[in-house]
Amino acid sequence: MRRVRRGSLSVEEAVDRLRDLPYEDLGYAKIDHHRPLRQGFPEVIFGRGKSPEQVEGVVRRMLPRGHNILVTRGDAVLFERIRKLDKRAEFHPLSGAIAIRRDRRIQGKGTVLVVSAGTTDIPAAEEALVTAEAMGNHVQALFDVGVAGIHRLLGESRQLRRARVLIVAAGMEGALPSVVGGLVAVPVIAVPTSVGYGASFQGLAALLGMLNSCAPNVAVVNIDNGFGAGYLASVINRL
Amino acid sequence: MRRVRRGSLSVEEAVDRLRDLPYEDLGYAKIDHHRPLRQGFPEVIFGRGKSPEQVEGVVRRMLPRGHNILVTRGDAVLFERIRKLDKRAEFHPLSGAIAIRRDRRIQGKGTVLVVSAGTTDIPAAEEALVTAEAMGNHVQALFDVGVAGIHRLLGESRQLRRARVLIVAAGMEGALPSVVGGLVAVPVIAVPTSVGYGASFQGLAALLGMLNSCAPNVAVVNIDNGFGAGYLASVINRL
Amino acid sequence: MRRVRRGSLSVEEAVDRLRDLPYEDLGYAKIDHHRPLRQGFPEVIFGRGKSPEQVEGVVRRMLPRGHNILVTRGDAVLFERIRKLDKRAEFHPLSGAIAIRRDRRIQGKGTVLVVSAGTTDIPAAEEALVTAEAMGNHVQALFDVGVAGIHRLLGESRQLRRARVLIVAAGMEGALPSVVGGLVAVPVIAVPTSVGYGASFQGLAALLGMLNSCAPNVAVVNIDNGFGAGYLASVINRL
Amino acid sequence: MRRVRRGSLSVEEAVDRLRDLPYEDLGYAKIDHHRPLRQGFPEVIFGRGKSPEQVEGVVRRMLPRGHNILVTRGDAVLFERIRKLDKRAEFHPLSGAIAIRRDRRIQGKGTVLVVSAGTTDIPAAEEALVTAEAMGNHVQALFDVGVAGIHRLLGESRQLRRARVLIVAAGMEGALPSVVGGLVAVPVIAVPTSVGYGASFQGLAALLGMLNSCAPNVAVVNIDNGFGAGYLASVINRL
Amino acid sequence: MRRVRRGSLSVEEAVDRLRDLPYEDLGYAKIDHHRPLRQGFPEVIFGRGKSPEQVEGVVRRMLPRGHNILVTRGDAVLFERIRKLDKRAEFHPLSGAIAIRRDRRIQGKGTVLVVSAGTTDIPAAEEALVTAEAMGNHVQALFDVGVAGIHRLLGESRQLRRARVLIVAAGMEGALPSVVGGLVAVPVIAVPTSVGYGASFQGLAALLGMLNSCAPNVAVVNIDNGFGAGYLASVINRL
Amino acid sequence: MRRVRRGSLSVEEAVDRLRDLPYEDLGYAKIDHHRPLRQGFPEVIFGRGKSPEQVEGVVRRMLPRGHNILVTRGDAVLFERIRKLDKRAEFHPLSGAIAIRRDRRIQGKGTVLVVSAGTTDIPAAEEALVTAEAMGNHVQALFDVGVAGIHRLLGESRQLRRARVLIVAAGMEGALPSVVGGLVAVPVIAVPTSVGYGASFQGLAALLGMLNSCAPNVAVVNIDNGFGAGYLASVINRL
Amino acid sequence: MRRVRRGSLSVEEAVDRLRDLPYEDLGYAKIDHHRPLRQGFPEVIFGRGKSPEQVEGVVRRMLPRGHNILVTRGDAVLFERIRKLDKRAEFHPLSGAIAIRRDRRIQGKGTVLVVSAGTTDIPAAEEALVTAEAMGNHVQALFDVGVAGIHRLLGESRQLRRARVLIVAAGMEGALPSVVGGLVAVPVIAVPTSVGYGASFQGLAALLGMLNSCAPNVAVVNIDNGFGAGYLASVINRL
Amino acid sequence: MRRVRRGSLSVEEAVDRLRDLPYEDLGYAKIDHHRPLRQGFPEVIFGRGKSPEQVEGVVRRMLPRGHNILVTRGDAVLFERIRKLDKRAEFHPLSGAIAIRRDRRIQGKGTVLVVSAGTTDIPAAEEALVTAEAMGNHVQALFDVGVAGIHRLLGESRQLRRARVLIVAAGMEGALPSVVGGLVAVPVIAVPTSVGYGASFQGLAALLGMLNSCAPNVAVVNIDNGFGAGYLASVINRL
Repeated sequence: MRRVRRGSLSVEEAVDRLRDLPYEDLGYAKIDHHRPLRQGFPEVIFGRGKSPEQVEGVVRRMLPRGHNILVTRGDAVLFERIRKLDKRAEFHPLSGAIAIRRDRRIQGKGTVLVVSAGTTDIPAAEEALVTAEAMGNHVQALFDVGVAGIHRLLGESRQLRRARVLIVAAGMEGALPSVVGGLVAVPVIAVPTSVGYGASFQGLAALLGMLNSCAPNVAVVNIDNGFGAGYLASVINRL
Repeated sequence: MRRVRRGSLSVEEAVDRLRDLPYEDLGYAKIDHHRPLRQGFPEVIFGRGKSPEQVEGVVRRMLPRGHNILVTRGDAVLFERIRKLDKRAEFHPLSGAIAIRRDRRIQGKGTVLVVSAGTTDIPAAEEALVTAEAMGNHVQALFDVGVAGIHRLLGESRQLRRARVLIVAAGMEGALPSVVGGLVAVPVIAVPTSVGYGASFQGLAALLGMLNSCAPNVAVVNIDNGFGAGYLASVINRL
Repeated sequence: MRRVRRGSLSVEEAVDRLRDLPYEDLGYAKIDHHRPLRQGFPEVIFGRGKSPEQVEGVVRRMLPRGHNILVTRGDAVLFERIRKLDKRAEFHPLSGAIAIRRDRRIQGKGTVLVVSAGTTDIPAAEEALVTAEAMGNHVQALFDVGVAGIHRLLGESRQLRRARVLIVAAGMEGALPSVVGGLVAVPVIAVPTSVGYGASFQGLAALLGMLNSCAPNVAVVNIDNGFGAGYLASVINRL
Repeated sequence: MRRVRRGSLSVEEAVDRLRDLPYEDLGYAKIDHHRPLRQGFPEVIFGRGKSPEQVEGVVRRMLPRGHNILVTRGDAVLFERIRKLDKRAEFHPLSGAIAIRRDRRIQGKGTVLVVSAGTTDIPAAEEALVTAEAMGNHVQALFDVGVAGIHRLLGESRQLRRARVLIVAAGMEGALPSVVGGLVAVPVIAVPTSVGYGASFQGLAALLGMLNSCAPNVAVVNIDNGFGAGYLASVINRL
Repeated sequence: MRRVRRGSLSVEEAVDRLRDLPYEDLGYAKIDHHRPLRQGFPEVIFGRGKSPEQVEGVVRRMLPRGHNILVTRGDAVLFERIRKLDKRAEFHPLSGAIAIRRDRRIQGKGTVLVVSAGTTDIPAAEEALVTAEAMGNHVQALFDVGVAGIHRLLGESRQLRRARVLIVAAGMEGALPSVVGGLVAVPVIAVPTSVGYGASFQGLAALLGMLNSCAPNVAVVNIDNGFGAGYLASVINRL
Repeated sequence: MRRVRRGSLSVEEAVDRLRDLPYEDLGYAKIDHHRPLRQGFPEVIFGRGKSPEQVEGVVRRMLPRGHNILVTRGDAVLFERIRKLDKRAEFHPLSGAIAIRRDRRIQGKGTVLVVSAGTTDIPAAEEALVTAEAMGNHVQALFDVGVAGIHRLLGESRQLRRARVLIVAAGMEGALPSVVGGLVAVPVIAVPTSVGYGASFQGLAALLGMLNSCAPNVAVVNIDNGFGAGYLASVINRL
Repeated sequence: MRRVRRGSLSVEEAVDRLRDLPYEDLGYAKIDHHRPLRQGFPEVIFGRGKSPEQVEGVVRRMLPRGHNILVTRGDAVLFERIRKLDKRAEFHPLSGAIAIRRDRRIQGKGTVLVVSAGTTDIPAAEEALVTAEAMGNHVQALFDVGVAGIHRLLGESRQLRRARVLIVAAGMEGALPSVVGGLVAVPVIAVPTSVGYGASFQGLAALLGMLNSCAPNVAVVNIDNGFGAGYLASVINRL
Repeated sequence: MRRVRRGSLSVEEAVDRLRDLPYEDLGYAKIDHHRPLRQGFPEVIFGRGKSPEQVEGVVRRMLPRGHNILVTRGDAVLFERIRKLDKRAEFHPLSGAIAIRRDRRIQGKGTVLVVSAGTTDIPAAEEALVTAEAMGNHVQALFDVGVAGIHRLLGESRQLRRARVLIVAAGMEGALPSVVGGLVAVPVIAVPTSVGYGASFQGLAALLGMLNSCAPNVAVVNIDNGFGAGYLASVINRL
């Protein structure tokens, strides 16, 4: 490293020497076993766009490590394959999440509360719940409390205030995170959903609404990205 | 409440005490029986994105109340389930609306006229008609009177002028509400439809056209949102 | 007309004979004195994009008729010209509205309440207020009650429930009309405003949010179109 | 009419008397038999979004009139129904156009030349060809002469210069109308097609390109709107 | 050429020999004197984005040829420079068009009628008028006949029917071309204008509306492109 | 409250009684003194779109409370006014932030690190820094470490790993949060900036990039919203 | 040609004589056999949107020439047809590419390295690989080295630095080309892929990100356009 | 490094040790002197959004190194400052580029030809020319050869074929790169420009057109990014 400091060894060459890193190369994927090791997090596979064979191959390599394993955006067919690998696998059909929970220790310091505006937002909310649970959190759910019937939400404000981190999933106008953000003093992760039609433009309306939230304790993840919200909530809940 | 006024009780806590509200919790949905009670309106279920079981479950809980029930964006399969719950259920196949009209009293003060620009706009127009009817209005329809054959519209101007509230559904360039708005002195609710292709961008062209209407008695609802138009027309027609 | 019915006179020719209509042609504009006559409405000029000379010319022709006159999107310079024509002219600097109220009779049956989410939404709200007032309505205002501090809005729910028609102006996420719509049983006209920055895209976020409102008694006008909202509210309030 | 001139009869009432117009009302559609009568044009039905029964019903009513009949965006199933009504019906499978040509007189003064950039643009080009032919024009086609092999186009410049009106269909970058427009001194009607992928955004790229054409003798119709191009070319070719 | 046919001379080389073409190279611009020669059209300079020096330089080179000269999107400063070159130069301040008409022969066979929806659309309409006039057409104007007061338009239908080619300029919802297209049997060139605010998105709403016109004798040019519309109308009017 | 539970008192009426809430009404603004009280947060004014008089008025009312005061998007003129009210006011010219820090206690548990991709992203980064500081955090900055020179970022990875919460501001392609997110195990708040030109579309490219981040510990706030990022980071840092 | 120079022969006429060019006209397509002849490149057919018969017809005409043949966006059914024409045909199922390599000479001077961010980007990467190979290049692949695990990429920097041209395919935030571009001193061709969901908008996010790359040795091709990237890389690699 | 391989030293820690890299930290910017050293390229500053003081500060630090220095998007004021630092500075007013060429050796193997469609595209073209020149290339320019007068381009095809790399700048429909790409067998770098109005949407139309180019030897850089095109052309020209 001293040679780099003196300039006699180029940065690229030095970096080049780092190449035998502890990830495993399946050809079509490089599994980063280090991440869970370093961070105590589960191993995660985004199922959509991958063949069942590819997903199964990745899961097989992950199993010896003993971490929790989470497959998102899967389906019943994929689940059957995975259950054969490990009987503890559970399928959540609304979101397509498949979780193999082998480590059930609670690592989050408080409760992660997942709120959804409507019945049709539940898939994204479920993905967030399963993710946060697989990452070692106490989780709670509060569904169908959209802003056009504000009393349903206010009727649950005690539960809102007890959470350490909130995830709020909403489609259509995506207004719920702003209202929730104004009722609590903790972080709110907003998940726009593709629920709606016409001028919702597959979740764009909700996404823009949430990005323009007038509550400053709100940040946003991608449309329908319940996984990202659950993951980030877990990261925050461990602080 | 006085404690709130003095600041010794926080707003949140006060609101928190309001929680046992008169809605019913099915887990995946909270039914607000209060709304029809308070407003004399039907109970409404947006069918798309819900499983037939979910819709049926909600309808079952609504039936004892005696209000009209409206399911939008359903299909023939769902209709069969619902007709088993109540023989009065009617299916409107173009729009997918399923209505159970148990209360046929007229509550609107005038006629709600639903105008459509073309044959292919009829699904949205039908949804508006069924909604306004389920909410206790005299309704009339005037179809296929688009602006490129303006004499067809002008030939019906007597009917236009007799209505107390108008709903105008149009796709493509969405010009009809502006022309109609200029011919009448009552509110016009514009429904852009997703009819068209290419640069209609699934109704965006019609939506933008209507939002820019040079007739100031026009307001707009979401693309294909016949339900919203029929609902709002009913609210206006009761004033 | 019988000849049209028989087909011996074409539609176009018949319509052609209608041409000497009671509007006045200034070359650059055709003033429709009939509209206020027929509808009891004020004469209105959209000021932006017209030269002060053009606006003054139109106002001069309107003055003999005795109706209220409303110029929208004007400025102080234009106001000075118009005040010279009629001392009753009033200038509303936030919105640029100039009103000459000569007929102060109340023609609306109830109160038109204009609600704004934030301080910066007041220009659009003011334009709506001035318009509704010039059209003969009792008007009230309720400003800075955005959804991130929901108690401010709930604290005024009595006033909300007393109105016969509501106008709700909001920028950013545009969530206020949904919440207000859920609290009242009367029509809500939503005005998205261009307030905001970044992903508000000059009001697009608020516009899309309002079009996707989950409250079905909400309809939407163009971004910043306080005039249209005030006009439509007046039309409804006369029913 | 004199009463309208004096103002004693309102415009609306006068127009109202025009109502018994020579169109036929099928409930779901109003057939304007006058248009072909007045203009010598065929009767046209946009097939997409209409049920086969609806299309067949409209065609039945048109048959007695003796005009050419054109159904656009149909399919083989619809064609079978229509061929039973009139044996002269012809099906063009790439575009889905169904034409019943009963009047084969040439009414256009010159040749309508339809040019396409690529093989995959042929459906829109075919729709334009069939339309122009059904409207009584000599037509010619020149396919697969896109701008990346400019010599293929230049090799046909004699044919380009012989046409009285040109229709140019192109997807992807939509550059062909600009090049063609620079080679001829007659009108060029540009048809953007939805051919392409990725950043073509279903024809948006071609549409924007054509609207920005630096050749000033080019005007544009909707994406994939071969019918509109063929119709307008026919209108021009009769001048 | 025979060698090209045999393949012994490549296409590129043959084309290469065509290079000494009759255009003049000013370094920053290549003036195509051939176009007016071949087509009897004026020489045209798009003024915006060019320095006054550049425009003046191009005009100087054009003057000896004796054609009409048209500068679009100029201003008063540029006009002063050009008037010094030729006293016949005329300035049209709404559109910024500067025309030097030296050849006043009428070359179009009928009348080009320019229709505008509102007062604020006049700049685009004026550009179209000046262009058509400079290209040797009888022109007429019909302004402020937007669709929300349809009787103003219908009152002029005789004038509409007398034109051989129509240009229709409209902003906001851009609905006028569809209505006009339904009233005439000749070509209609639609010019969307950037007039409007909010959801007009600088003319996008009008543009999309016109592209989706349900009148099939309508084609569209770029937003505010009065020049293109006037040019194309002239090309058609010479047929 | 029991009456609400029984349904004998409507929800609206109950909520209505909550109305005398501890906020102060200036007519054009309702100041929520409760928020800082409840949350230990500063009082914040969004300066843009408000007149200097309005901002000064709000600041005057806030001063007696003793909290930190933060005005965002101000300018030098506004700063002069505010410095007269309190000598401790500090102006940050790149972002326009004006801070009156009267309470300098540290309330955050770790360091908030603000990273920027380029020199031109510093305004948003500065706004985040000032906000986090005004809310009682240790803050650090790391500027000009964009991804095209990845060694600059990797050279600071020790500093990255020491932070408890990270804020990453980047314009153009907005890739930096993904890379940073992969290097740390704590929350990353991504701030897209409007830096760039052309296809950056005023920050849209960066915004979309960040929303699609493949690092799951990243959430996004509005374009240029350094304030929101700083606020949310502070909320997280107090957990 | 001299006559053109003197102006006595118009340009169009001269060009017209070039028309018997060495391309073959199949009616629906004009095959340009000259291109491979002139450039040593394969004959290429874009398979999507063409019928199997059309593709087969074009391949048959190409076979006698002896060049490599590449069909992109095909499928297994099409492959079966083509393998019957030539046993050397190979099918690449992820991308749908079908290659008939008859000329296996290496014509590129260095290695073309294809890098992909994730497993799901492999189809575009594969299309680029097959294309570059069919065009006579040494190719290498480096998959699943996205920026959120930057050490996987840095671990391969030696391979990156050995390439003469790089192709980088990435979806989601599309950040990889910027990072790679900063590590090498040779051209980088960025291929945005449609991988992702929600705010990826079918590759728009990646496309915009790459266009805004802060690495100046990066240029971009269309979304999923692996063929274009492979072709351009080959063109560069022959220089 | 072996410890990394064994996993006993984390990747981050290893990378962390690389931190004392040979770049210079000015606080607001980190100058990477290594890049020119490693690559023989000039030092470049993007001028827009930086204060003159900042740019001057960076230039001062670069001067001792002896490389060429290029400032893009500057202005006359900035130029005066920089000329005081080095008399060799040259200002290119159309593009705002400021170049200090101290090393005039030619490092590119062939000619870089910069083609522009119109006079108004010259700023982007000039930026590309200045960049390629500062990077040691023979450069040539060919301006105002847009596709609507294709003979102007074909007349220069010999010059086109002589270039080793081409840069093509075009606004409006952006069609020129496709035509040029079809005429040459070398790489074409397309620069969309913001030239145009209306539906050009500040260069979006040209950008989309170029991304959809049917010529496969074309790649695209950001709108108006002449610098990037010139840089990449130089990188290619050194191969």
